[in-house]
Amino acid sequence: MNDTKIILIGSGNVAFHLVKMFASHNIIQQILVRNIHKAQEVFKDFSIPIIADYADLKQADIIIIATSDDAIPEISSSLQNTNSLVVHTSGSVSMSAISQENKGVFYPLQTFSIHREIGYASIPFFIEGNSSENETKLLQLANTISKNTQILSSEKRQYVHLSAVWANNFTNANFVTANAILQEQGLSFDVLKPLIQETVSKVMEMSPIDAQTGPAKRNDEKVLQMHHNLLTNNKLKYLYTLLSNTIYDFTHEKL
Amino acid sequence: MNDTKIILIGSGNVAFHLVKMFASHNIIQQILVRNIHKAQEVFKDFSIPIIADYADLKQADIIIIATSDDAIPEISSSLQNTNSLVVHTSGSVSMSAISQENKGVFYPLQTFSIHREIGYASIPFFIEGNSSENETKLLQLANTISKNTQILSSEKRQYVHLSAVWANNFTNANFVTANAILQEQGLSFDVLKPLIQETVSKVMEMSPIDAQTGPAKRNDEKVLQMHHNLLTNNKLKYLYTLLSNTIYDFTHEKL
Repeated sequence: MNDTKIILIGSGNVAFHLVKMFASHNIIQQILVRNIHKAQEVFKDFSIPIIADYADLKQADIIIIATSDDAIPEISSSLQNTNSLVVHTSGSVSMSAISQENKGVFYPLQTFSIHREIGYASIPFFIEGNSSENETKLLQLANTISKNTQILSSEKRQYVHLSAVWANNFTNANFVTANAILQEQGLSFDVLKPLIQETVSKVMEMSPIDAQTGPAKRNDEKVLQMHHNLLTNNKLKYLYTLLSNTIYDFTHEKL
Repeated sequence: MNDTKIILIGSGNVAFHLVKMFASHNIIQQILVRNIHKAQEVFKDFSIPIIADYADLKQADIIIIATSDDAIPEISSSLQNTNSLVVHTSGSVSMSAISQENKGVFYPLQTFSIHREIGYASIPFFIEGNSSENETKLLQLANTISKNTQILSSEKRQYVHLSAVWANNFTNANFVTANAILQEQGLSFDVLKPLIQETVSKVMEMSPIDAQTGPAKRNDEKVLQMHHNLLTNNKLKYLYTLLSNTIYDFTHEKL
């Protein structure tokens, strides 16, 4: 695997963390970006050649497109003359967005922020390739980073991405809402931190349905009505009811 | 504080953890319960007298009613002849549910499960008393357990409880939904665990609004539509749209 030559395309959060993941393996030959100046700042801790012109690309075994979803087909088209295995890193884009003969997907399921340290060894990598040979290559590459790798079709990957939106985006949105409720009362979000830690610790050890508690599960109409009355924003009122109904339905096997 | 005599009423999760919290202080004189046999099992690791008859109650400085919300007024009425400071532990019930002359609230903001170890020292305790003397007594009691104690009115406590429902109940409901989506595809909830850990780690260090990411924030209509199409349950379809709209509104300062 140490002979593998990789070219990375992109300078966002995923691209940055991929460079960091592979840093000790010394296999990234070049980073192709749109904006050289921005990229020099992003990748300033790494001594990897940064280019902006497709004509400057060297030969590589694997080209990883780690950009926004929308840019993937166009970038793939721009790579037309390559024999490399070309992959993207998106959870929601089909493998067919890549136009090369050898194509695949290299999807790390995690939320990446540029300044945060992440334990790469536990990140789940979902791999897809248009041949078993390509899948093996990508699995081997993922295995150099993580112990948590598996092959998954484009169709199933969409559902993983959807579940991740629920687990991450919608969960963070709950924290935004809770924060707004507290701020309006002059209280700090900090008071919720031990509760949030325990909420998550529980589902690390038991199934989410067994961990569910609260007035919605008990159908405690007095508390549900009181909370509804406390909310002044009609959208949040409605969301409160819908989320409470979802809890009731799930815990009473009606969903 | 070591001379304080406490009587605890209840045998649920909060009652169990309060007994555990105070175990090393040796200040709980009696535990009053409805069902002696159940309580003997719950409290089997503690050598505290368990009684079921109000007539057997000894004198105490503080009586803590740690039962379901609905039982609080009736229990308080049954204690009619006491001079003790009587408090409840509920997030959503007003202090006025207690009928004694000396009354208060002793609300630990955490989700308690009987078999889980919890770091008591970080639990926020919200205290209320009908006199500053009673508030001081309750604060001193809370300070023997936690470093995170504050006085808060019944009205504001309702909002804390509401925010806790969002942070805990609704967040766990997201995990239930994510689990259901994955299970239908034959995938394990385990793949989301590193993502969930990082989701929470982020809001321990930055404000939730800064931590928000995802297709709803970007208004990525292609992904939003794709996810909507993947969901087969109409309630979840609708919830997906509403949660996505909430994220868009919050991150674009429209809520």
